[in-house]
Amino acid sequence: MTNKIHFQCDYTEGAHPAILERLATTNMEQTVGYGEDAYCDAARDKIRQACGNADLDVHFLVGGTQTNATVISHSLRPFEGVLAAETAHIAVHETGAIEHAGHKVLTLAATDGKISAQQVRTLMEEHLADSSFEHTVRPAMVYISFPTELGTLYPKAELQALRSVCDEYKLPLFLDGARLGYGLAAPSCDLTLAEVAQLTDVFYIGGTKVGALFGEALVISHPLIKSHFRYSIKQGGGMLAKGRLLGLQFDTLFTDDLMGKISQHAIRQALRIREALNACGIHFLVETDTNQLFPILPNAWLKQLESRFQFSFWQKTDEQHSAVRICTSWATTEDNVNALIEAIQLLHSKANA
Amino acid sequence: MTNKIHFQCDYTEGAHPAILERLATTNMEQTVGYGEDAYCDAARDKIRQACGNADLDVHFLVGGTQTNATVISHSLRPFEGVLAAETAHIAVHETGAIEHAGHKVLTLAATDGKISAQQVRTLMEEHLADSSFEHTVRPAMVYISFPTELGTLYPKAELQALRSVCDEYKLPLFLDGARLGYGLAAPSCDLTLAEVAQLTDVFYIGGTKVGALFGEALVISHPLIKSHFRYSIKQGGGMLAKGRLLGLQFDTLFTDDLMGKISQHAIRQALRIREALNACGIHFLVETDTNQLFPILPNAWLKQLESRFQFSFWQKTDEQHSAVRICTSWATTEDNVNALIEAIQLLHSKANA
Amino acid sequence: MTNKIHFQCDYTEGAHPAILERLATTNMEQTVGYGEDAYCDAARDKIRQACGNADLDVHFLVGGTQTNATVISHSLRPFEGVLAAETAHIAVHETGAIEHAGHKVLTLAATDGKISAQQVRTLMEEHLADSSFEHTVRPAMVYISFPTELGTLYPKAELQALRSVCDEYKLPLFLDGARLGYGLAAPSCDLTLAEVAQLTDVFYIGGTKVGALFGEALVISHPLIKSHFRYSIKQGGGMLAKGRLLGLQFDTLFTDDLMGKISQHAIRQALRIREALNACGIHFLVETDTNQLFPILPNAWLKQLESRFQFSFWQKTDEQHSAVRICTSWATTEDNVNALIEAIQLLHSKANA
Amino acid sequence: MTNKIHFQCDYTEGAHPAILERLATTNMEQTVGYGEDAYCDAARDKIRQACGNADLDVHFLVGGTQTNATVISHSLRPFEGVLAAETAHIAVHETGAIEHAGHKVLTLAATDGKISAQQVRTLMEEHLADSSFEHTVRPAMVYISFPTELGTLYPKAELQALRSVCDEYKLPLFLDGARLGYGLAAPSCDLTLAEVAQLTDVFYIGGTKVGALFGEALVISHPLIKSHFRYSIKQGGGMLAKGRLLGLQFDTLFTDDLMGKISQHAIRQALRIREALNACGIHFLVETDTNQLFPILPNAWLKQLESRFQFSFWQKTDEQHSAVRICTSWATTEDNVNALIEAIQLLHSKANA
Repeated sequence: MTNKIHFQCDYTEGAHPAILERLATTNMEQTVGYGEDAYCDAARDKIRQACGNADLDVHFLVGGTQTNATVISHSLRPFEGVLAAETAHIAVHETGAIEHAGHKVLTLAATDGKISAQQVRTLMEEHLADSSFEHTVRPAMVYISFPTELGTLYPKAELQALRSVCDEYKLPLFLDGARLGYGLAAPSCDLTLAEVAQLTDVFYIGGTKVGALFGEALVISHPLIKSHFRYSIKQGGGMLAKGRLLGLQFDTLFTDDLMGKISQHAIRQALRIREALNACGIHFLVETDTNQLFPILPNAWLKQLESRFQFSFWQKTDEQHSAVRICTSWATTEDNVNALIEAIQLLHSKANA
Repeated sequence: MTNKIHFQCDYTEGAHPAILERLATTNMEQTVGYGEDAYCDAARDKIRQACGNADLDVHFLVGGTQTNATVISHSLRPFEGVLAAETAHIAVHETGAIEHAGHKVLTLAATDGKISAQQVRTLMEEHLADSSFEHTVRPAMVYISFPTELGTLYPKAELQALRSVCDEYKLPLFLDGARLGYGLAAPSCDLTLAEVAQLTDVFYIGGTKVGALFGEALVISHPLIKSHFRYSIKQGGGMLAKGRLLGLQFDTLFTDDLMGKISQHAIRQALRIREALNACGIHFLVETDTNQLFPILPNAWLKQLESRFQFSFWQKTDEQHSAVRICTSWATTEDNVNALIEAIQLLHSKANA
Repeated sequence: MTNKIHFQCDYTEGAHPAILERLATTNMEQTVGYGEDAYCDAARDKIRQACGNADLDVHFLVGGTQTNATVISHSLRPFEGVLAAETAHIAVHETGAIEHAGHKVLTLAATDGKISAQQVRTLMEEHLADSSFEHTVRPAMVYISFPTELGTLYPKAELQALRSVCDEYKLPLFLDGARLGYGLAAPSCDLTLAEVAQLTDVFYIGGTKVGALFGEALVISHPLIKSHFRYSIKQGGGMLAKGRLLGLQFDTLFTDDLMGKISQHAIRQALRIREALNACGIHFLVETDTNQLFPILPNAWLKQLESRFQFSFWQKTDEQHSAVRICTSWATTEDNVNALIEAIQLLHSKANA
Repeated sequence: MTNKIHFQCDYTEGAHPAILERLATTNMEQTVGYGEDAYCDAARDKIRQACGNADLDVHFLVGGTQTNATVISHSLRPFEGVLAAETAHIAVHETGAIEHAGHKVLTLAATDGKISAQQVRTLMEEHLADSSFEHTVRPAMVYISFPTELGTLYPKAELQALRSVCDEYKLPLFLDGARLGYGLAAPSCDLTLAEVAQLTDVFYIGGTKVGALFGEALVISHPLIKSHFRYSIKQGGGMLAKGRLLGLQFDTLFTDDLMGKISQHAIRQALRIREALNACGIHFLVETDTNQLFPILPNAWLKQLESRFQFSFWQKTDEQHSAVRICTSWATTEDNVNALIEAIQLLHSKANA
């Protein structure tokens, strides 16, 4: 549709061919709707197995904003709010969907997109010590994203510390895994899917950005959040009539570890770009090894690159430089990455000529 | 997945093959997200043309409940409610999505799923004459479905009368067209798509039940509802990241009148079933010529039929009889209809033997 | 302010003189705010004692609509609704406050303002038997008013039956007692305050209509509703800064059974009017012995009466007759009742002359 | 109720004696309810006259949190938010009432409780320049408090600048005047009530903290906010049955400038305390000349003072010092202020001995 090569986000193509083919071969089969078909059940089983826990509830929703609003609305009482980094998707980029459902997002200062157990503890202590605590929103859930909106990851020790403080204050821990596949495939990641499932109360495995046409697989271990969840899916508009479309996609992603394989591909391409940028002396807004890179480029370079490549503008860092976001995905081709690397190297050699 | 033939609803298969093929051929193209791509624009143009009005705003959302909640939430002020038939989808089958968005559904007694202009006028007159009117919800929008949840249609004269009373009381008229294609293809329908667009303030063309994998095309003529609508789509979770999937599907449905053709197929199959039932002396809960039939069958017949066919139980009509819903769709095969007709005829002949 | 005598409602005067005096004598005392003062605590103790249960939580809110919305919002999860008579205040006369808080009022056909245990059971059975139950609002609380909006009362047996069905389906039973004092003082009432407290999960004792300037005393026995309730009061705007005003009023009402005495006065006056109307052959829309009467009067009488008396128009019953509401209260004077009775007798004797 | 002298807030006593007397003399009069009585009308007229604008709509609500939530909910569309200082009452101390009504509070860094026109302009420019603006909450109203929660005031020039930027971006300007009387009476205030009315779209005159038992008088000039406002009052629980109680109180406050006189009294007492603290070399967290002072006191002093005086703890400023809030009000006695001043002087002289 355009001659530019898109690196601005990780949802520029359709779905992994194996998914499209699966949809095609099952297309004229008749199934019941609303996620109660056998394909959804099969996908649920595979996800439970991958998580190493047969007691998990698994639901499929259409998109991330919807999943976030549905989980938070379902879990909180009216006077309760959800803690999140100030950079969290729910705090910034969901047009107030959480507030529309009645809840305040209690933001914490973020370090590279992350919050710490200590920040949660401090906020809880301050809330409980406040003599007029009932005049403020009751903090009642912790939301983190993994990877974060800045492509960073929580090491296992940090996630365990969050789990601990959440246990201490009886706060459900909700992990937004819209890009979970890419996080688990990152070299620095010391967590497995099973550990993510074990350390959180509810989390989701993103499909939209990791090979599917759309869809998020929500995994719940917390008993209260489990209870009656399908009512909330329906109320939130997330109960797809042809629910099998979601089951088929996740069943495919969890067959022969397709999700793992395509995530590794995306990471490899990201690391190639990172290496090339490093070699040119480019710095990054934040150090990442997932599928999102935030290089700080000279504006002059950006001007030239943008005739052929599309990035997401992130922020101005000084008069001559800007940080941009470069994403890879399951669909990123070696050729496109080569083209980008060559273009960068050319700019670098010109600058040093 | 099952040996039964499903007639219980119109979303048991995937998508029309032309749509799947379109998704496959464009799969690895890169486009921008969120409905701002060229495929969505092309689909918008075709829909505007089919509606005969270049000034319409067209948006694509994922599902019906989501579209209903988004439109109503976007259009009403907090103290306002929406009028609807007591059988309306928004009143019964959306788990309170409208109330979750803060609004009361002001239900009117329905005749075969429909409401009349006179009912709207009476309610408005009573509201305005009530000395404590500010203690009651302000009626501020009219919702109708076309076809209704009972498969019936508003003749043009009835829709014009509703338009009139809505103009008189400044009520936006919202038409839920989840099955609009089947309605326009019904023999008794005296309305065109362009007339639907002209007589309403906002309506949608259902894709989920009429050939698409999912998706509803929302068409807005009312200036206030037009304004800032994309914020509401995002807030309501309806802004698909890979928005082109919706554009591609509707572009296909509106190419060479595919939607019209496949709707006519569904109606033909429904009429064949209706004729067969009529020939057996079966009565109907309500007379319809769209893709939904509500025959009143002897329980004994149902018991036998249900080993091979799946219907939706609708209601008990007496000790020996029940009404069920039988749906056809773009995907209904001649063979399956033949099988159903033969089974009915066999039961009939046995009964009269 | 007007020469008419007001019988249209039970909140036309200020407060019982003992309350005003109490406010005056304590006026310049300094207390902490928000209901945490000693006067509120004293009132709480007296109410607990009157209810015969030291474990009850007692809160004071400003008005009835606010109390209803706060209790229901606090008690329900987002996908849940509250059962109520179609004539219930929350269903009709609160400008959708319950829906604004996100919840559907699931209305049941009312008999003289009341609902039955059997209606609740039927609705629960239907909900649970519905194969698409998750597509409908989950019924999760029962709301009744006592006396009802039509002045009627639940006999003990009916309230016990409601309690039973609520236990069976784990539904909290919420009793709106905006006019509770008048209900308990009615000749036909076979319930005590302690029994009301014992048979419900949460209820309130209305002050606004029974001697106070304003205020409702909410009494909670249900553990989940007890938990964190003050957050909801603050969020709902019901946490009065000078909370002692509420404590002082209820402390006065519960001293020497002031509430009982003034309620009996109101009932005596109502019964005098009822007797006079009966003697003139007047029928009633509904039989009541609380402080609300609904006589069906000839329009010609109404025209003459309305030059001196103010009633609430209720409904037209035929071309020549209308039902009106006549209320008495703690403030109704013998003289005003005498005046009304004489006027009625005069009209009667003229009509029979 | 306690032997301590309360300086922690400005709502520790009842009402100005003139108000109590007014309530007593009118107590047994009969009036219609819900703010439609002649006392409310008289108060409305006096407020309009004091504001110098006969076209203003005036409504009476019970409390501040309720008024804030009602105005904001009434004014915004679902995807819109309200700008406010991070220290604003609506952002911190209303248990998320704004979010409960569906709206995000878009907080700006505050300087002594205030925000600037430039901050509003920058946020609007950033929102409009953001390519994904529809994914963020639409900023659509500006909320300020006057005096602020920190006792500071907007000079006329700053309020005019806010008015200007609000005009430029079509943002209604909402001024929370819970302590408006004390603000207008401050020596540094260069604004009149009429100018406040002229420079804002909607504001309120606090009664709760300035001589009334309770109540806020809301003044609306903005046409859209005017429209249908009483529905929102009822929905929000703010429509007092005995509405005349509010009318009587504000009528009294606006007779012979009672509000002005009692506000000046409070300011005089605050300035006496400030002067005494200044004389002892005490610094303040923020410089104010309204009825709220925020002195930074040695913890050792606080420990001694708190046996006789009650302050609000505000924040720790270093290991040895804390800022507290000291409030005066219409009810503060010369004697109590004398006692406080003497106690401070004694601590000071001991410290310097």
